[in-house]
Amino acid sequence: MQIAIGLYPGFTALDAIGPYQVFTNLPGAEVVLCAERRGALDDDNGLLHLEIDHTFDDVSTPDILLVPGGLVTRRIAKERGPIVDWIRTAHATTTYTTSVCTGALLLGAAGVLDGLRATTHWIAYEQLRAYGEQPTAQRVVVEGKVVTAAGVSAGIDLALTLVGVTHGVETAQAIQLGIEYDPQPPYDAGAPSKAPPAIRELVTGVMGAAEARLLATE
Amino acid sequence: MQIAIGLYPGFTALDAIGPYQVFTNLPGAEVVLCAERRGALDDDNGLLHLEIDHTFDDVSTPDILLVPGGLVTRRIAKERGPIVDWIRTAHATTTYTTSVCTGALLLGAAGVLDGLRATTHWIAYEQLRAYGEQPTAQRVVVEGKVVTAAGVSAGIDLALTLVGVTHGVETAQAIQLGIEYDPQPPYDAGAPSKAPPAIRELVTGVMGAAEARLLATE
Repeated sequence: MQIAIGLYPGFTALDAIGPYQVFTNLPGAEVVLCAERRGALDDDNGLLHLEIDHTFDDVSTPDILLVPGGLVTRRIAKERGPIVDWIRTAHATTTYTTSVCTGALLLGAAGVLDGLRATTHWIAYEQLRAYGEQPTAQRVVVEGKVVTAAGVSAGIDLALTLVGVTHGVETAQAIQLGIEYDPQPPYDAGAPSKAPPAIRELVTGVMGAAEARLLATE
Repeated sequence: MQIAIGLYPGFTALDAIGPYQVFTNLPGAEVVLCAERRGALDDDNGLLHLEIDHTFDDVSTPDILLVPGGLVTRRIAKERGPIVDWIRTAHATTTYTTSVCTGALLLGAAGVLDGLRATTHWIAYEQLRAYGEQPTAQRVVVEGKVVTAAGVSAGIDLALTLVGVTHGVETAQAIQLGIEYDPQPPYDAGAPSKAPPAIRELVTGVMGAAEARLLATE
């Protein structure tokens, strides 16, 4: 089983590394980090510098395809960047096509979400609606072979859910225990329905401003 | 505030990237990924290739120091590798010295844990005892300025806990909402006390064999 995690400059690190940590513990799975080009690729902070070995063309028929989110996804989706073509083509033969966070916008641009329920980072619900989807507040949405997760950290839950389906409950539980995923957040503010309204407004403002800055400089 | 995440070849990706994702959302924080040398550095899967910009010497007085775990930590701790010296020296002036997973063994080797309660990946409790510590099954252990977390994914909980202390509850909640950390694992097997015994034995066997293979090839 080949699992391709498709990256692009400006992806959000945990979106990709959460599922990566689950999938690389899966016996018999070949996990491939790929991008448009080989070589240097940075995350959205510009602090995490990756060297990429494989292009999208190298990994044209993955069994599982996963794309992380990032503040740049709205632009990439609009401009139909190379990752969108890769998703559309690979989707024809995947067993599962999946996204974390605003990676869902890339699936949307590739036409993968047509007529399906899907989720994304809560701040991007409106952007997902632009693809004709009805976003849900569910953390992981399984619609046949298309699986979408909520923001950033939800990729861990997505990956464990997927392993449970493809390799059975025991394998998924073993990986969960291996990465000691027994979450105990010190606060209960991780979803818009749970966070105090003032916190929600604060985050909406900060993330909106960050995206606006990003779009303005390009 | 400078936050240094100290890496070494063979670190476990999520151990570092969980806290990284929290800390890089912290207003005014400078997050630095550092290692013994500049240049290429791989994780324990050999699949995630990083380019490191900063050496330990470049980041000698961080406010917060964090070290991730990995299967190689027992060896590095025993051989008192460069990261151990860095921890010992920097610890004199840190506000917080912290570890995720078996990163605790590196703190132990640096003498940071002397007389303190601490935690690590559940599979390494015995190894932590070798440093005279009494490991606890707590997910995040705060002992003054020394903060240790359980395995792999527990670094997210550690980082949010720390932000709550240094920057207040509202900032921590805003970051939690920003990374949509509202965990909903599909199973409840993420701690040794919760996983079925057969799963625990399976993971113990697999991880023990992986470490043995690693030590045999060096």
